[in-house]
Amino acid sequence: MKLKRVLKNRDEAGTVIDNDLMIIAGPCSVENYDVMDSTVAFLKSLGISYIRGGAFKPRTSPYSFQGLGDKGLEILREVKLKYDVKIVSEIMDVRDIEGICEVADIVQIGSRNMYNYPLLKEVGRLNKKVLLKRGLSATIEEWLSAAEYISLEGNDDIILCERGIRTFETYTRNTLDLNCVPVIKQKTKLKVIVDPSHGTGRRELIKPMSLAAIAAGADGLMIEIHPEPEKALSDGNQSVDFEGFKSIYREVLRLHRYLNME
Amino acid sequence: MKLKRVLKNRDEAGTVIDNDLMIIAGPCSVENYDVMDSTVAFLKSLGISYIRGGAFKPRTSPYSFQGLGDKGLEILREVKLKYDVKIVSEIMDVRDIEGICEVADIVQIGSRNMYNYPLLKEVGRLNKKVLLKRGLSATIEEWLSAAEYISLEGNDDIILCERGIRTFETYTRNTLDLNCVPVIKQKTKLKVIVDPSHGTGRRELIKPMSLAAIAAGADGLMIEIHPEPEKALSDGNQSVDFEGFKSIYREVLRLHRYLNME
Amino acid sequence: MKLKRVLKNRDEAGTVIDNDLMIIAGPCSVENYDVMDSTVAFLKSLGISYIRGGAFKPRTSPYSFQGLGDKGLEILREVKLKYDVKIVSEIMDVRDIEGICEVADIVQIGSRNMYNYPLLKEVGRLNKKVLLKRGLSATIEEWLSAAEYISLEGNDDIILCERGIRTFETYTRNTLDLNCVPVIKQKTKLKVIVDPSHGTGRRELIKPMSLAAIAAGADGLMIEIHPEPEKALSDGNQSVDFEGFKSIYREVLRLHRYLNME
Amino acid sequence: MKLKRVLKNRDEAGTVIDNDLMIIAGPCSVENYDVMDSTVAFLKSLGISYIRGGAFKPRTSPYSFQGLGDKGLEILREVKLKYDVKIVSEIMDVRDIEGICEVADIVQIGSRNMYNYPLLKEVGRLNKKVLLKRGLSATIEEWLSAAEYISLEGNDDIILCERGIRTFETYTRNTLDLNCVPVIKQKTKLKVIVDPSHGTGRRELIKPMSLAAIAAGADGLMIEIHPEPEKALSDGNQSVDFEGFKSIYREVLRLHRYLNME
Repeated sequence: MKLKRVLKNRDEAGTVIDNDLMIIAGPCSVENYDVMDSTVAFLKSLGISYIRGGAFKPRTSPYSFQGLGDKGLEILREVKLKYDVKIVSEIMDVRDIEGICEVADIVQIGSRNMYNYPLLKEVGRLNKKVLLKRGLSATIEEWLSAAEYISLEGNDDIILCERGIRTFETYTRNTLDLNCVPVIKQKTKLKVIVDPSHGTGRRELIKPMSLAAIAAGADGLMIEIHPEPEKALSDGNQSVDFEGFKSIYREVLRLHRYLNME
Repeated sequence: MKLKRVLKNRDEAGTVIDNDLMIIAGPCSVENYDVMDSTVAFLKSLGISYIRGGAFKPRTSPYSFQGLGDKGLEILREVKLKYDVKIVSEIMDVRDIEGICEVADIVQIGSRNMYNYPLLKEVGRLNKKVLLKRGLSATIEEWLSAAEYISLEGNDDIILCERGIRTFETYTRNTLDLNCVPVIKQKTKLKVIVDPSHGTGRRELIKPMSLAAIAAGADGLMIEIHPEPEKALSDGNQSVDFEGFKSIYREVLRLHRYLNME
Repeated sequence: MKLKRVLKNRDEAGTVIDNDLMIIAGPCSVENYDVMDSTVAFLKSLGISYIRGGAFKPRTSPYSFQGLGDKGLEILREVKLKYDVKIVSEIMDVRDIEGICEVADIVQIGSRNMYNYPLLKEVGRLNKKVLLKRGLSATIEEWLSAAEYISLEGNDDIILCERGIRTFETYTRNTLDLNCVPVIKQKTKLKVIVDPSHGTGRRELIKPMSLAAIAAGADGLMIEIHPEPEKALSDGNQSVDFEGFKSIYREVLRLHRYLNME
Repeated sequence: MKLKRVLKNRDEAGTVIDNDLMIIAGPCSVENYDVMDSTVAFLKSLGISYIRGGAFKPRTSPYSFQGLGDKGLEILREVKLKYDVKIVSEIMDVRDIEGICEVADIVQIGSRNMYNYPLLKEVGRLNKKVLLKRGLSATIEEWLSAAEYISLEGNDDIILCERGIRTFETYTRNTLDLNCVPVIKQKTKLKVIVDPSHGTGRRELIKPMSLAAIAAGADGLMIEIHPEPEKALSDGNQSVDFEGFKSIYREVLRLHRYLNME
């Protein structure tokens, strides 16, 4: 497949190690002001500055909570101002771009929209970072082609996010494919982070798989956190609470620092 | 998963046999007037009245032919008027709905957009048949949920289309999952047709798999045809030529008639 | 991949249509004499002469019923003599070959043993039909290579059996891959039959998928039947009862006769 | 599924961290004395004492190199005596057990034999470590059931080995499923090691995926090494040369030491 823009040129160096680790954390969806406020306060206290939170949620069932929409964006705007954090939020509809871009510092293309080429082209015209999640069963090549769609429109500020692929395994929600991390680091100019929350679907697997992702060379992590995971409106099983997050974060930072020492 | 609208009610009859077979045929994409004209003339001569042809093509690579867009719609309009046929054409972008609906009698949601909920909701508000293809690796339940999204907005005129799922098999482009046909016929109120062109990716498999689909209870077929498949701008390997199509169609009709005799 | 023996030669005809339909039926496992006797009596009354029944059962869990072993072979021998039928029974262990061959007319290599090359070589040295099931996630090419292992030892009397592959779909036990039927008929000299019982895992799907298999060109079917499916020691959900079987068989025969008329 | 023996008891501690890292290395197959001798000499010089080398090779094609058989065992015996190393070798056939056990310190059940229950039962009766590779598309639960088969016969000295599962991805040979590592460490009493050679199929991915496996909590690694990978009779693409191995090993050891520091 032709990939002119995202691949490294022949004479570029191999894997570029970046000393900055990008940690994005937050609840699956923006549920209400209090959950968002307490979560961001906590994350900020740890020094984390990228906050995730979906205002528009693509849900398999039309009867599931669909996100707060504009009300959710409003909450994101408030915590952004109050805590001076950067917001990562998903875009599902080309008609929502303007509204989301007013708040979000990074616009996320979710798994279900990785093949949504009109949407890819639109975010390719933005002057804003794009987080591109891998499709539910996308090959690495298709995923890079999706990035190429964005890049071709002029926006090269793309972060790929591995979030697990669909296999026959039923014990975990998805199968986290860490093989893709060194492939992307070796072949392309793009950053790649890993989402162990969706990639496992189980809270107790998030710490070891976060460490594995870092060791594989990932540029960062995206982790779902909720003050009371058992009450979350979406993805509670895979969300960690504050204590759980702190423990994961401490070990991740320590490992990353160690790996980047020379 | 909750599915209120698409499932049969407890007291409804089992599989409803429909004596009409829906055959949709045409080139993968609208390439130019001549190909479209000769193909529709041929199909019309066989008595086929549903014509497929993509004006907007979702392609994995941004460097592949992306469809003629509005020019393609114009060609579809011309052949529609000339031959009095019904047009089936894919919609990828909510902003194209008006233009496509002026021409198309059935709007198609392709595999890559099965999880595109804003698009599903929009076609749910139309007073027009919707052809909903199964996602590349969607479960049957997720597919029915996508139909439920459409139905909830008021449009119950939904035809599902099985087009193969992604597996580890490499000899065929996809694995046609005919198991889903009786599942859908037994459990839901929806029609289901089968696309053996995408479901196999190989011309020589289209006839046997068309017959298998009909025997499994499918309500129809969607088949790619091209006057010169080796020159097609997309999906040539899986397109049949006029002679090939005639042979498939004759046997399909004969089998369908036989199965519906009592 | 090199496949010298099972592929058609360049000058051989395409699909060879065989007027005989091979129907193999019987319980998943030999449970006791009475079940076997009543089932064979019933099948014989329909004119079916190939009887399946496992004496040695490969079960995922060591705590599941493992088959009656030699006692099961004894029961098979008795019904074989009483009803003059042909026995199809699975072999899992090279050390059981002699015992099974005394009773079985067709030795079955199950899915879990498709890659068991020592076993394949041993049955390749027999002067007896071999039924080779496709591995749980085997590609068509790997399956043909397994047949090549058998053929290379001198035994060309091989029947392939498609029994569903493993995918992400959870509603059905496996995904029946009927694409493989025309591939095998077009490319190889081998017969191919279809097992809709394992290929769907659901009783209500067996009739439509049996018809689909025949329409796709399969040379036969292998179907699980039990006098009281709900009491079966293995695979009850996918077994049909006598009435159910009769209805399937009648329609299958009728379709096969129709398809072979000229 | 019932799993009485391999799961932790309710009152047992969570993940047990073992300070020993088990590194198994060697060529895919025993090809000749010289390759084996030079490889073992090299590995021994690094302090590695577990040597892999297949004498009996399960190969998809009957035309591929099938291993040297008894001659291969003889070579393994020689290097074992000369270098005082432990031998890991695969068993495919119950009839080879005695011969292999005279040489091997660990008997390996390969992917293709994970469902070979007669073989599992036989190695369950040995007084010898068993390395049980995950089946090509086995679920974690099926894999643990295979271990249960071994354990039930009395042999609890089982090491699981994740070697990648089959998915739709084509860039890598398999998809290494590291999710299974913490699942096994948290739930069972068994050790689990990772084979990044088969799990990726690409030499350049072995270092990052080895590090990832260790970070995920694996008890060890199994890595294919060959003095001249491009000349290897099997699996050359995924074998590393001596220099490559040394670099991987150094980083793996360093990471393991770091993770086990308190």
